[in-house]
Parts: sequence; structure tokens; C-alpha cells
Amino acid sequence: MLLHGHHLIAGHRSREGEATIRAFDPVNGESLEPAWAQATRGEIDRAARAAESAAVEMGRMGPERRAEFIERIAELIEERGSVLIERVMAETGLPEGRVTGERARTTAQLRLFASVVRDGSWVDARIDRALPSRKPIPRPDIRRMLTALGPVAVFGASNFPLAFSVAGGDTASAFAAGCPVVCKAHPSHPGTSEIVADAIAEAVRSCGFPDGTFSLLHGAAPSVSIDLVTHPSIRAVGFTGSLQAGRALFDAAAGRPDPIPVFAEMGSVNPVIVLPGAARDRGEAIAAGLVASIVLGSGQFCTNPGLVIGVAGEELNDFAGHLRDAVSRTTPQVLLNTGIRAGFERGTGEWAATAGVRVLGSGHGQEASAAVSARPAVFVTEADVFIERRHLHAEVFGPVSLLVQAANREQLLASAQVLEGNLTATLHATDQDLADYGDLVEVLQRKVGRLILNGFPTGVEVCPSMHHGGPWPATTDARSTSVGTAAMLRFARPICYQDFPETSLPAELRNANPKGIWRMVDGRMTRDAIR
Amino acid sequence: MLLHGHHLIAGHRSREGEATIRAFDPVNGESLEPAWAQATRGEIDRAARAAESAAVEMGRMGPERRAEFIERIAELIEERGSVLIERVMAETGLPEGRVTGERARTTAQLRLFASVVRDGSWVDARIDRALPSRKPIPRPDIRRMLTALGPVAVFGASNFPLAFSVAGGDTASAFAAGCPVVCKAHPSHPGTSEIVADAIAEAVRSCGFPDGTFSLLHGAAPSVSIDLVTHPSIRAVGFTGSLQAGRALFDAAAGRPDPIPVFAEMGSVNPVIVLPGAARDRGEAIAAGLVASIVLGSGQFCTNPGLVIGVAGEELNDFAGHLRDAVSRTTPQVLLNTGIRAGFERGTGEWAATAGVRVLGSGHGQEASAAVSARPAVFVTEADVFIERRHLHAEVFGPVSLLVQAANREQLLASAQVLEGNLTATLHATDQDLADYGDLVEVLQRKVGRLILNGFPTGVEVCPSMHHGGPWPATTDARSTSVGTAAMLRFARPICYQDFPETSLPAELRNANPKGIWRMVDGRMTRDAIR
Repeated sequence: MLLHGHHLIAGHRSREGEATIRAFDPVNGESLEPAWAQATRGEIDRAARAAESAAVEMGRMGPERRAEFIERIAELIEERGSVLIERVMAETGLPEGRVTGERARTTAQLRLFASVVRDGSWVDARIDRALPSRKPIPRPDIRRMLTALGPVAVFGASNFPLAFSVAGGDTASAFAAGCPVVCKAHPSHPGTSEIVADAIAEAVRSCGFPDGTFSLLHGAAPSVSIDLVTHPSIRAVGFTGSLQAGRALFDAAAGRPDPIPVFAEMGSVNPVIVLPGAARDRGEAIAAGLVASIVLGSGQFCTNPGLVIGVAGEELNDFAGHLRDAVSRTTPQVLLNTGIRAGFERGTGEWAATAGVRVLGSGHGQEASAAVSARPAVFVTEADVFIERRHLHAEVFGPVSLLVQAANREQLLASAQVLEGNLTATLHATDQDLADYGDLVEVLQRKVGRLILNGFPTGVEVCPSMHHGGPWPATTDARSTSVGTAAMLRFARPICYQDFPETSLPAELRNANPKGIWRMVDGRMTRDAIR
Repeated sequence: MLLHGHHLIAGHRSREGEATIRAFDPVNGESLEPAWAQATRGEIDRAARAAESAAVEMGRMGPERRAEFIERIAELIEERGSVLIERVMAETGLPEGRVTGERARTTAQLRLFASVVRDGSWVDARIDRALPSRKPIPRPDIRRMLTALGPVAVFGASNFPLAFSVAGGDTASAFAAGCPVVCKAHPSHPGTSEIVADAIAEAVRSCGFPDGTFSLLHGAAPSVSIDLVTHPSIRAVGFTGSLQAGRALFDAAAGRPDPIPVFAEMGSVNPVIVLPGAARDRGEAIAAGLVASIVLGSGQFCTNPGLVIGVAGEELNDFAGHLRDAVSRTTPQVLLNTGIRAGFERGTGEWAATAGVRVLGSGHGQEASAAVSARPAVFVTEADVFIERRHLHAEVFGPVSLLVQAANREQLLASAQVLEGNLTATLHATDQDLADYGDLVEVLQRKVGRLILNGFPTGVEVCPSMHHGGPWPATTDARSTSVGTAAMLRFARPICYQDFPETSLPAELRNANPKGIWRMVDGRMTRDAIR
């Protein structure tokens, strides 16, 4: 497949700027053809305005057509076959198994969202019928449901070139909610982005959707992102990436004359707490699983376990030994880009330079096996150092983790209490540990979005019950998730109809309930028609 | 009842600052005893910290106790009897019927939230059971539900001294979601606020809730509000008031090191569109209803109809005549405070000074019958003037409305298209009008939270289907409502448990479903237990 190096604006190719953005193969260090330009203000404006026009037309299309459109995107991504897989591998250094797995996750999540749209109950329909004889005043007939928020700006993430990029979770959930999308490609994988955007554009055409339903813009300069987020036609933002970039988008959106919500999934250290009974019973297995989780995807997952906490004692000493042995068996990992490597070196360098922090163990072998790589490592420190030094609470992105040894139960609790917001916290615990540490669970519940027992935080299931969000700085809005079907709720708002006749109401709110969706009628959940 | 002029901080009276805030009777112009002080930084800090501590303890209390607590508040407000009613009347100039009606609404909405808490299904429980033999990897057991967000800062509104102040919708929905509240009293009704706060504090004590569950602070300086919103312990904000004040709180919250959501319900002109068939068939009745809606509560409701649009022709001429006659039968209305009157005079003065805008009609009688009053009025202009002059699109708070005469169907649509976000839009239309103006309905749907047919926007039902929100500047977050049971969702976030044993899960997520709540289990809604 020929890559054009153009933006895709409402179905048309455009490149007004000078082509300067090139992908880079992190395995062999070579830059890849072709080059893309930064989107100009004019191009951003065209994409955003086309999305605003498309929003009106999308509003007229029913859920069935929207579901078909989303499913068609999944089919067309699969049809791109090895061309897509090979480009992803070249641009990211990720191995083939991971890339095909991520493609499967991407198409599965598109189909899951399509099924939720087709089912229809997600609109949270609520009907309170008129009570004409109520005293002192009659009650009117009131009906509400969720409707699309409007054009969404989606930012591709470097660490999920498919599942959280052009046709990833943010785009899928925005389309599912009925919103057009203007996507900014991550400059680490512009070719992957172009291939996927081409599949979406083909789905737009073949399903008869308005051209402005989707646009892809390229840009590496922050100004492109800021211009997109502050465009009057954009109504919400989906982002996965660093705290610094997420904060910049949030600030730009909050500073608009009409602020819009930014759903940014940002930094997280994802603490793993190994309680004494679990360390005693399964210390070696926990250490092995933990190191596998630390190096999964070269440690570049949002849920990478960057912090491990235990209570000092013989069990923890043995566990630390197992952890050291397990990490010493790892080899250097290919990273996605030089920016991530620079951050990894800066972060681990700061840890190494901190008094009271030392290396517990690290991987073996030549680091130069890839152009951009990192040696996995586990550092170790004591809880009083950890509690004191706030820079140790922040994420270091990559295959590294910090083991914190608490002197006792109180220090363990204090270490948990100083944590910032996180996507996840993991407990390794026996039944007895759980009974002994109920207060710890209570502290963690206030800090995180997901609590995992005797597992590992990496591996985020895409399903209705998943919550992939958490208090700041894990996300900008602890009430939102970027994984799972509830992600649609970010891009929808209620609309309420008072005393409208049947014929002027959306199908979801008509008495007959033609789609048989779940509705709250006069306070009771039912799928029945109203007679 | 003796008023103390103190803040109420976690059950204790406090007044560190100098007492300077006094209520003022808008009917006779006299200032009222006693005086309250601005809350100091130390007092704000104590209240917010106490709320943070209380949040932990409230988390341990089940929904049944929370429901009892909220119901107890309603009972204790009723027990305050005429002492409360009289103080509200003195501080607001509102007539007795309105005040007792508003008290009934306040206690009814407290009881409604209590019933939702007791029912329990609002937590949106979702369970996806483990699939241990799934390929390529097993699915863990994942369960999620909504949990309290943490301490909420609530700002009392001047225009609803009971229903949107100390124990109003924001406080009721925050308590219902399980959040402690630190309320800042509106300086127009500090005595009313103290009486209601005293009732809440009594409910806190008698129900065994932690002292920090509720605090009331006084303050007229913006710094008190900003210090409260930027306090690290506060997790969300509920506000009803002006665009200027709402924006200031929003900006302060967005500028925190850890931004928090602000749910501010601000300005709205609530357009009423009278289509030709309706104007012909029911012009006089619509005009009478509209004027009654314009002067309801002296025009100081969020949903006050500040804009009326029609299509030029004989029907509209007749309708304008009815409107003029109806408004000329009104008399001057008592306003809540001198700030509102100053805003009313400034806003109507700007209209009067705008070329092409003239007075259609106004009320009769002496304006000096009350110390702070306003003469109801309807202004009139043409659509081309309206479309051009953006200051005519903004709210003028008080008993006044602007009639816009569109030359034709296109100008009517164009007038709707230039509108900013609104809480409501109202259509007066025959069936034929509705069929003829489908595109108008489509435009309005994108602009507002609630569409009303052949009614009036004032009168906001408190029920599950109500949506009292809308695109900026109506609110800071179009996805939220401040009226109706969905208001609770503002103050809750999901928490997810992976592979937790039954005994460590909240009751809502246990297999047995002991409360019989609605849950989504493996993608299907059910109240059944899991076997």
C-alpha cells in the first residue's frame, strides 16, 4: 500500500504545510518514508467545521446504521491485513504477536461498541408520565435520553498504535455515541495512522455517512493540538498520554470562552502491595508474575506496575530475592521512541541519585541490540524515604519498578496514604491478610479506579464492568473510563422532552418502545411498552 | 429562634473574623439582625479537612443509614416551622405561599433522594463473571459500581433560599451519593441558611454521622469562595448563580494542581418560539401564560423566558398585542437584593439604548411599593437586529423578556442558530407547525437541555427524567443536571474490583444481590442473584 503523507480531511487529502514528520524504526534506527506535514490552522478549521456539519446529519441516522458503520470499520481494518501489521511493527518495534493481538482487541472493541449501539439501552431512557390531576399542579409528561455531545477531538497514543489511536477506544466510543471525530495522529506512527484512517474513510463512504464524520490530522508541534482543542466546533477531547501533555490540553480546553471536557488518561504508578501471608505462600510466583507485568509491552502500558510495597520481614526479604532473580533474567526491551527513552533515563537516573534508593536488580545482555532500548530494572528503598521524597511517587514510564519496604503495618498504611490518584492498585493477599488489612483496602479505594486481588494490573478487559480511570493525575476526570462500554458516556449528554407527541419523539422514548430497550418508566426499570 | 451569626464547622460554632455581613429586607429596606463574619482561611481549612475525614467514615455507613439521615433533615426542616418561613420572607421578599411551596419542594426532593439511595439501583452495578477457560487468556471476575467522589463544596443560590441553598438539590444529591458537604451560604439569606444548617447539624448528631458530614460557612468576598474551591480536600463543586461567578469558580477549580469538576448552573435566556398556527389558535392564552411565567418569582428563575421569537405576520401582530396587554396588567415585583436590581437596570438599559429595540409594554403602578423592585417589561425588536447584536443573546435576570420578530421562516431558523447554550427551549406549535418546522426542532435540540411543547419553561419537575442542564453558558458541563435524581451522578465515580472474594465486596456487588438492585450481569440487566 502506498502511503501518501497527507492529512485526511472529511474524505479529501490535504497537505498545505511542509512535510517534516517522519516515523522512525526503533529497532534499526532508520527513518521511514514518507514524510507528513504539520496541520495548518486552515486545515484544522476545515476538519473541525466539517465535523460540526456532520454531527447534524449523523443525528438523523438511527443506531442501526451507526452500528453497521462501526462494524464496517472493523472489517476494513482486518482487510488491510499484513500491510497494516508490518507498518505498525516498523514504526513501533513491537513484535508481530503483540501487534496482531492489539489489532484483534481493536476490532473486538469496535464490534462491542456496535453491539451496545444496536442494543440501544445505553441511552438511559427515563420517562415520567403526565399526572394531569395531581395537586397542587399537574405533572407534565417528561422523557429524557442521552444524545451525542458533538465533534470529539481524539489524540492517538504512542503506546497503543491501534487500540488507543486512530480507530481505538476513544474513536470507537465517540462514534458509538453518535459523535464525529477529528483525530490527531501520534507522530511516532503516522503511517499506521494513515492506513487506519483510510479504512475509516472507506467505511464512511460505503455506509453513506457524511464526509465530516472523520478527519485525520498530523502534527508534532503542541500548537496543532492546542488549535484543535480550542476550535469552537470541538465539543470534547479524548487523550491517552503523559501528564504534561494531558494537562496542557486540559488547560487549553478550560481556558476556552466555552470550556469543554477533556478526558485524558495520564500517569499512574499502579501500586502492587504484597502482604506478608501472600509473600510467604507465593513469593516466587508473585515475583515472576510481577516482572512479566513490568516488562510487558516493554513496560509501556498505562497499568504498568511501577511501585511494589511490602512489610519488612523474612517473607519480604525472600520476595525481594525472587524479584531480583526474576528481573536479572530479563533482557533489554525495545522502546517506542527516543522521547520515551529519554524520559526513562531521566526518571531512573533521578531514582539512582536519590539517597536511600538503590538498584535491587536489572536485566542482562547487550543494550545495543536495538536502536532504542531500555534495560529492565527494579529499585528498592525504605518507606520513610519513599514517604518523604515526592518525586518517587510519580510515574517513570518504561520497564522499571520501585520496591518500597515498610518497617511495619503503620508505615505500609502511611505509604498508601501518600499516593496520588492511580488507575489501579493490586493486592497480593491471603484471606487472613485481607481480614488483617481491611483499613488498607479502604485507603486504596479512595486512591484508585480499579482494585485487583492476586493478579497483575496489566491486561485491561474490554467489557461493561471495566473502569479504566482514577483520581488525578491518573485521569482528568475520575468519573470517566477510557476502556469498556461505559467510555461512551463521556461523549453523550441528556436531552429532555416535555409534553412532546409520540410522532415527534425519538424511537427510544415512544410509548411503543419499538426497540425493546430498558427504560425507567415512572421510576421502575422495564422493557415493556407503555399502554 | 435565636440566630447566632456564627459559621457552623463540623458541629461547632465559630466566628474568627469581624461580623460584617447582614441580610436586608427588600420589602422595607431595613437591614436585619444579627451580623455574620467572612470565613477565614483557617475556618475554611477546618471545615474542608473535617469533611475529608468524614468521607471515610460515611463510606462505612450503608445506604439505609444514609437514607434515614436525609429523611431526618427533611423532618427537622419541617419542625423549624414558621420561624424558618418568616426568616425566608424577611430576607428575600418572597410571599408566604411561594416560601411554603419551596419548603415543600425542598423536603420532597430530600425524600426523593433518600428513596433512590434506599432503592440502591442508582449505583449502576455491573458484573462480568470470570471465564477461566477463555482463549487466548482467561477473563477475570470484574465488578464495578458507583461510589462517593468525596467532599463537595455547595454554594447557596439567592433565588432559591431553600430548594437550591443549604439543604437544596446540590446538598441533597451530594449526601445521597455519600459525600460530605461544605456549604457557603448566600449572603442574601444568612439567617435562613443558619436555621437550615442547624437542622442538618441536628440530623448529623441524631443519626450518628461524623461531625464533618456538614459545615456552613458565610462570606460575601470572592476570596472565601475561591479558597473553598481550591482547598485540597474538596473534590467537586455545586453552584447555581451568575455566569460571572460560575466562571470564576470554574477557573479556580481548573487551575488547581489537581483540577476538580465544577457543576455550575448559570445563565439562560430560555427561548420561547411561537409558531404561526399556535399564535393564530391560542395567541391570547399563550401571551397570558408567558407573562405569568415572566413574572413568576419576580422573574428570578433560571428558566425564566427571556426571549420570545415569532414569524412576522398578522398572527404575530395579534400575539404581540396580547403580550403588551398582558404585561401592562402586571405591577412592580419585589426583587431579592440590590445586586439583582442593579443588573436588571443595567441590562434593560442596554436593551433600551440599542437601535432597533423598543419597549412593547410594561407593568403599571408605583415602583416604590417595595424598597427593591422592578417593573416587568417586554421589549421588541426585529430578527436582523437580534442576530447582529450579540449582547441581546445574553440573559437579563428579572421580569423582562425580548420579543424577536423574524421576517420569515429562514430568519426564524437563523435566530435560533445564533443562540448560545440554554437550559430550555419552548415551542408553541400546532401539529402542522411541528411538521413544518422539523428543522427548527433539530437546531434547538443541539442548543438546550430540555425542550417543552405548548407549555412554559418555569416549573422544573423533580423526577428521574428531569434534565436541568444545557450547553455552555447554561452550565459548565452539559452532561450534568442539577435537578432530578440524576443530579447524584455528578458526585459519584466508578470503582472496580477484580477477582475479589464475596466477603470483601460491597453488598451491591455480591452474588446474592441482597438488596435486589438492578445490575448488568454479563451484559444483561437483571435483579436476580448470581448462582
